[in-house]
Amino acid sequence: MNQDQLVATLKRVSTATLTMQLLKRGIRQVWMFGPKPLSDGQERIAGPAFTLRFIPGREDLSGPEILKRTDLAQRRAIEECPPGHILVVDCLGLADGAAIGDILATRMQVRGVAGMVSDACVRDADGVKASGLPVWCPGAAAPASVASLSDGDLNVPIGCGGVAVIPGDWVVCDNDGVVVIPQALVQEVAEGGLEQELHEQFILQQVKDGAKIPGTYPPNADNLAKYQEWKAKTGG
Amino acid sequence: MNQDQLVATLKRVSTATLTMQLLKRGIRQVWMFGPKPLSDGQERIAGPAFTLRFIPGREDLSGPEILKRTDLAQRRAIEECPPGHILVVDCLGLADGAAIGDILATRMQVRGVAGMVSDACVRDADGVKASGLPVWCPGAAAPASVASLSDGDLNVPIGCGGVAVIPGDWVVCDNDGVVVIPQALVQEVAEGGLEQELHEQFILQQVKDGAKIPGTYPPNADNLAKYQEWKAKTGG
Amino acid sequence: MNQDQLVATLKRVSTATLTMQLLKRGIRQVWMFGPKPLSDGQERIAGPAFTLRFIPGREDLSGPEILKRTDLAQRRAIEECPPGHILVVDCLGLADGAAIGDILATRMQVRGVAGMVSDACVRDADGVKASGLPVWCPGAAAPASVASLSDGDLNVPIGCGGVAVIPGDWVVCDNDGVVVIPQALVQEVAEGGLEQELHEQFILQQVKDGAKIPGTYPPNADNLAKYQEWKAKTGG
Amino acid sequence: MNQDQLVATLKRVSTATLTMQLLKRGIRQVWMFGPKPLSDGQERIAGPAFTLRFIPGREDLSGPEILKRTDLAQRRAIEECPPGHILVVDCLGLADGAAIGDILATRMQVRGVAGMVSDACVRDADGVKASGLPVWCPGAAAPASVASLSDGDLNVPIGCGGVAVIPGDWVVCDNDGVVVIPQALVQEVAEGGLEQELHEQFILQQVKDGAKIPGTYPPNADNLAKYQEWKAKTGG
Amino acid sequence: MNQDQLVATLKRVSTATLTMQLLKRGIRQVWMFGPKPLSDGQERIAGPAFTLRFIPGREDLSGPEILKRTDLAQRRAIEECPPGHILVVDCLGLADGAAIGDILATRMQVRGVAGMVSDACVRDADGVKASGLPVWCPGAAAPASVASLSDGDLNVPIGCGGVAVIPGDWVVCDNDGVVVIPQALVQEVAEGGLEQELHEQFILQQVKDGAKIPGTYPPNADNLAKYQEWKAKTGG
Amino acid sequence: MNQDQLVATLKRVSTATLTMQLLKRGIRQVWMFGPKPLSDGQERIAGPAFTLRFIPGREDLSGPEILKRTDLAQRRAIEECPPGHILVVDCLGLADGAAIGDILATRMQVRGVAGMVSDACVRDADGVKASGLPVWCPGAAAPASVASLSDGDLNVPIGCGGVAVIPGDWVVCDNDGVVVIPQALVQEVAEGGLEQELHEQFILQQVKDGAKIPGTYPPNADNLAKYQEWKAKTGG
Repeated sequence: MNQDQLVATLKRVSTATLTMQLLKRGIRQVWMFGPKPLSDGQERIAGPAFTLRFIPGREDLSGPEILKRTDLAQRRAIEECPPGHILVVDCLGLADGAAIGDILATRMQVRGVAGMVSDACVRDADGVKASGLPVWCPGAAAPASVASLSDGDLNVPIGCGGVAVIPGDWVVCDNDGVVVIPQALVQEVAEGGLEQELHEQFILQQVKDGAKIPGTYPPNADNLAKYQEWKAKTGG
Repeated sequence: MNQDQLVATLKRVSTATLTMQLLKRGIRQVWMFGPKPLSDGQERIAGPAFTLRFIPGREDLSGPEILKRTDLAQRRAIEECPPGHILVVDCLGLADGAAIGDILATRMQVRGVAGMVSDACVRDADGVKASGLPVWCPGAAAPASVASLSDGDLNVPIGCGGVAVIPGDWVVCDNDGVVVIPQALVQEVAEGGLEQELHEQFILQQVKDGAKIPGTYPPNADNLAKYQEWKAKTGG
Repeated sequence: MNQDQLVATLKRVSTATLTMQLLKRGIRQVWMFGPKPLSDGQERIAGPAFTLRFIPGREDLSGPEILKRTDLAQRRAIEECPPGHILVVDCLGLADGAAIGDILATRMQVRGVAGMVSDACVRDADGVKASGLPVWCPGAAAPASVASLSDGDLNVPIGCGGVAVIPGDWVVCDNDGVVVIPQALVQEVAEGGLEQELHEQFILQQVKDGAKIPGTYPPNADNLAKYQEWKAKTGG
Repeated sequence: MNQDQLVATLKRVSTATLTMQLLKRGIRQVWMFGPKPLSDGQERIAGPAFTLRFIPGREDLSGPEILKRTDLAQRRAIEECPPGHILVVDCLGLADGAAIGDILATRMQVRGVAGMVSDACVRDADGVKASGLPVWCPGAAAPASVASLSDGDLNVPIGCGGVAVIPGDWVVCDNDGVVVIPQALVQEVAEGGLEQELHEQFILQQVKDGAKIPGTYPPNADNLAKYQEWKAKTGG
Repeated sequence: MNQDQLVATLKRVSTATLTMQLLKRGIRQVWMFGPKPLSDGQERIAGPAFTLRFIPGREDLSGPEILKRTDLAQRRAIEECPPGHILVVDCLGLADGAAIGDILATRMQVRGVAGMVSDACVRDADGVKASGLPVWCPGAAAPASVASLSDGDLNVPIGCGGVAVIPGDWVVCDNDGVVVIPQALVQEVAEGGLEQELHEQFILQQVKDGAKIPGTYPPNADNLAKYQEWKAKTGG
Repeated sequence: MNQDQLVATLKRVSTATLTMQLLKRGIRQVWMFGPKPLSDGQERIAGPAFTLRFIPGREDLSGPEILKRTDLAQRRAIEECPPGHILVVDCLGLADGAAIGDILATRMQVRGVAGMVSDACVRDADGVKASGLPVWCPGAAAPASVASLSDGDLNVPIGCGGVAVIPGDWVVCDNDGVVVIPQALVQEVAEGGLEQELHEQFILQQVKDGAKIPGTYPPNADNLAKYQEWKAKTGG
C-alpha cells in the first residue's frame, strides 16, 4: 500500500483494534498517556509522524525573548512538518505548559498537516479548535511553551505520553486516544486490523441478537464458519 | 424495602447526599477516585455490586492467547452478573488498560445488567456509549485488558477507586461520581437520604428567595419549623 | 482604571495572553493546576480575589457536627465575599472533597459574587451548574468539605492550584484555565494584554491568508509596520 | 501531667502505639506523609507544636531580595518558637525546596527548640545534622525556601504531610515518623499509650518464647490474666 | 532441583541477573516498585511466595475492634505461611499504613518464615529489624494496617508493587529489590542465571584490567572463547 | 579559571550555595528531582556535563538482542565521556529501569570519568558502589535499561530530573543533590559561591556563639563590617 492507501485503510481501523494487532505481534507499549481529542467529533486521523522535542525550561534558555530566534525547533516544525503528516510533540508531559496556540495551529491547518499530538496542552484552546486542525492533547493551559520548556530538536526519536516515536512511525488517533505503529509493521497491522474490524462487526451483531460471549467472542469453530460464510456473502 | 424499592428510593437520592448520610454514621471512605459518567446525560443508577478483580499484567499470564480460555473471570463476569446488579471492576486504577469494550458492554446491556463501574477506562468507547449500558469510568483507552492486566477473581471483596466493595454492598452512581453503601446500612441510608433531599430542596428555595446561609443551612429552630410545616402541607 | 474598567478590559484579554504579559515581567508561576470551567460555554470572568483556606481533615475537627458552628470560614466566605469578587478556595488540591455544593453556590450567585475558583471539586455539580454561578474547578465529587477538610481562614494569603493568591490580587478565568495577576501589576498587564490581543488578531488573519510563521509571528519590521498601519486605520 | 511530665511519658511511647490509641478514639488522620528522621539514631522527641506556614512561590513575592525583610514568618519562627516546642513547617509538600538550612537549624538548637518537622527537605543537610537539632523531613534539597515558596503565617492552623496541626497540638516523632495528638486528648493518649507499651512488651516476650498469635495478640482471658499478674509482680 | 537446591542456587544469582534471564524469555513485568531492604546488610533471600491481600479501609470494616476476630487473613498468614516461604503482602501500595509490626515479624521469624515482602511499610520498624526477619518494604510508618486497610484473602493471586504474584511463584530479594519468577520457569532461570553470574564475573575482571566495553560486554567470539577457556580451567 | 581551577573551586562550594548564586541571577530551575548520593560519604564532585538520552521502551526497539549492536548510545557514552566529565543520563525519570550496572560503572571509573548522574536507578548497586565511581541517582533497581528504555542520543541537550542540561554545562553533586550551572555563568557563580561560603562560615560561628538571626543572617551593616574585618584578618 502507498501512503494514501495506508491512510485510507487505517482510518477504518480503531485504535482499540490496532493495539490488539500490535499485542499479537508482541508489542505492548504503544498507547499514549494523556492525549485525547481536543474537540468533540474529531474524526479518526492517520499519518506518518513528524517529531518535535522540548527539554525542560531554564530561565536563561526559555522566555519571551527567545521567540525572536528564527531557528527555534517549534517554529521550524510548524513550517517543515509535511502535509499529511502528524506532528508529534514531546513536551515531557508537563501539565502547565502548552505545545502551541491558535496561530501556529492555524498555520499547520493551512499547510495541510494532518493533525497534532502532544503530551502537553494547547493554549488559546478555543482558537485552536476554531482552526480546524485535529489535535490530541490532555487539554487546555494558558502558559506558552516558552514559559516552561526550552528549545529542543526536530525529527529525532522522542517519547510522547510514554511511547517511543521514531520519525516515520505511523500514528493513529481517535476517541480511544493515540497509538503508534512501528514503520516496519504498518502494512500488516493495517491489513490485520481491517479484517479484525470486520469480524468484530459480525460478532457485535451476534451479541445484539442475543448470543452469549463464550463461543462467540472469541468464536468457536461453528461461529468462525458462520463468519466466513457471512464474509463471503457480503463481500467483507 | 425490597431490592426494587431500594433502587427506586436511591435513584431519588444524590451521591452527595449519600456521602453525608454515611459520614453521619462515621463512614468516610466511600467515594471512588476516578470513575465518572462515560456519556453525557446518564441517569443516576443504583444496585447491588457484583465484583470483578484483575491482578497486574505479566507476559506469561496476559496476552491475546489467554482469550481462548473459557474460565476467564472477566468473561464469566459478563455472563454471571445478575440483571439489576452493577458490575464493579478492580483494574488497580491502571490508566492505560481498558476493563471492557463495546462487545462485552453490549452483552451486559442485553442481559439487563444495571451498569458498570471501573477504575480503569473502557475501549471502543464510542461503541460502549452506543450500547446503552450506563458506565462510570475514568475515560477511554485503546488497549485491551489482556495487554496490561492478568486474570483475577469473581465476586470477592475488592478495592475500586480506593474504596472497599464487598459483593452485595450497594452502589449508586450519578454526575458526582460513585458511592458505595455497606449492605447493612443501605435501608437507613436510603431513607435518611430521601428526607435530606426533601429538606435541601426546601432550603435551596429559601436561598433562591434571598435567605442568608446562617440560620438557613443548617436551619435554626425557626427555619426547621417552617420546613416541617411545608413538608406537612406538601406531603413531603 | 477603576475596578469596573479593569473588569471590562480583562474580559477582553485571554488568560493565554495574560501569562505572556506576566512572563515578560519575569513572573511565571501564575497559572493554576486543576481548575477548568465547570459548565460548557462559561464566559471569561475577571475580578479581585477573596480567599478561603481549608486545612486537612481530622476526625475531631471535621464532620457533620461542625456545620452547626456559625463561625466556619467556609460559611462566612459565602456571605462576606463582596459582589464582583471571585472566591478563590485553597482545598489543598484534594481530589475527593468538594469546596461547596449547590446551596452555597446559589447563595453566592444571589449575592452577586462574580465566580468561584477551587483546586478541589464541587458537589451537587448539576445544581451548581444550574445556579448560574461561574465556577472553575477540577470537576465533581460527592463528599462534602467536612468529610476531608477542616476549618481554616478567611482572606489570608493562600495557595490554589500551586499559585500564590494574596487577597486583592486579580483573577481571570476562561477556557484555558485560571491566571492570577499580582495587584500591583494589574493595570499595566491589562493594557499590555489588550494591545497584544489586537496584534495577535491581526497576525492570525495574516496566517489564515497564507503567511509563513517566520517574519509574521513574531513580526519583522515590515509586518510590524503593516500592523501599525492596520491599527491606525481600524482604530485598534 | 504538666508539660515536662507529658514529654517524659510520650518519649516512652512509640508513634505506632500512639496511632493505635488515637484510632481507638476514632481519629485516623494523624500520621504525616513525608517526614522521617534526618539523622541516624535520632531519639524520639515530643512537644507542643509551633507552626509555620508558607504559600507557593511567585517571582514577585519570593527571591533572595526578600531575605532583607525582618518580618518574614520563617525568620521570626526561628526566634519565636519556644524552647521545648517543635517547629512544624507547612511547605506544601514541595520536593524541591528546603524549609531551612544549617544556620537556622543551629540557631534553633542554641535556643532549646526540641526539634523541627517539615514536609519539605532541608538544605546544607550535613550542616543541619551537625547542628544537633533533631529534624524530621523527607530528605535534603539544595534550593532555599525563597526559591520556591513565599512568605506565609506564624502559629496558625496548618497542614503538614497531610495532617492538620493546630498550634498547641502535641507532636511525637520517632523512626516510624511523625504523629500529631490533638491537645484535648494528649493526656489520656499518653497514659493509654504507656499501658499499651507495657502490654506489648509482655506479648513480644511471649512470642519470642514461642507463643502463637491467636490468643496472644490480642490476648485471650487467660493471657490477659497472665499479663496482669506479671504487671503486678514487676510493678509495670 | 528440589526446593533447597533452588534456594541455594538463587541465593547466588542477583535480581539484576534474574530480570535479564526473564527478559530473554519475554517477561518484563517482574520487578516490584517500592520494596527495598528494611535493614542494612540483609543477605539475598529466595523462596516460594505465600500471599496475603488487603482491600481498602472502610470505617465499618477496619478498626481496632476487628483485631478480636480470629479469622483475619493477616493474622492467619503469620501462622500459616510455611517455613522457608516468603510472605508477599498486597497492601495496595498505600504509603500510610503498615503491613505488620514487631510482634508479627517476631512470630514469623520464630516459625522459620524466610522473609516478608510488602508494598506498604512496617511499623515498630526498629522492632521489626530487631526480630531478625528479613523484610523488603518501602520503609516505616506508624499506623497499623487496621487504620487504613480492610481484611482480604490468603494465598490467592495478588499484585504487589505492580507485579502479579501467584502462590507458588518464586521470589528473590536483594539490594536491587524484589523479583518474581513464574513457577514454571524457576529452574531454567536459576540455571541460566548462575551461568550469567559466572560470565559477568569474568567480564568484570576484564574491565578492571582495562578492557573496552565493545567486544567485551557483550563478548565477541574471541572473548567468548577466552571465557570458555577460563571457565573450563577454573571449573566454573 | 581553567577547568582544573573550576573543579577545585566548585568542590569548595555547596550545591545549596550554588542554587542561591543562580537564584540571584534569576535562574531557579537547576536542582534535579530524584538523584541523591548512591553511597554514604561520597565527596562533592564537579565537572562539565556529557549527556546521554534514552527514549521510552518499545518491544521492537528494546530488549536483550539490541545489546549486540555496537552503536548503542549508552555503550558509546561509557567509552566517549571524557575523563573529568560527569555523565548525565536522561532516563525519563523511570523508577523501574536502571541506567547502568556494575560493569559499565567500573569501565567509567577506569577511564577517569568524574561521576554519573541519572534520574533512574542503577542495577548491581552493590557492584556500582564497589566500582568507586561516584553516582547520584534515585536508588537501586534490578531491571536493565534495555527492559524499559530504548536507544537515544549522545551529547545533545537533555532533561534530567526536570532540569535542562546542555552539553558543556557544569554539574555539581553533593549530599544536597545535583545542581546544573549554565556554562556561561560558571566562573562568576563559582567565585560568588566561594565568597558566600566564607561569609556563611562566619555567620554560622556567630550563631553558635549566640547571635540572633535578625541582623546576623542576612547581616546588618555592623555585622557586615565585622565579617570584612575577620576576612581581612584571616585572609578569607
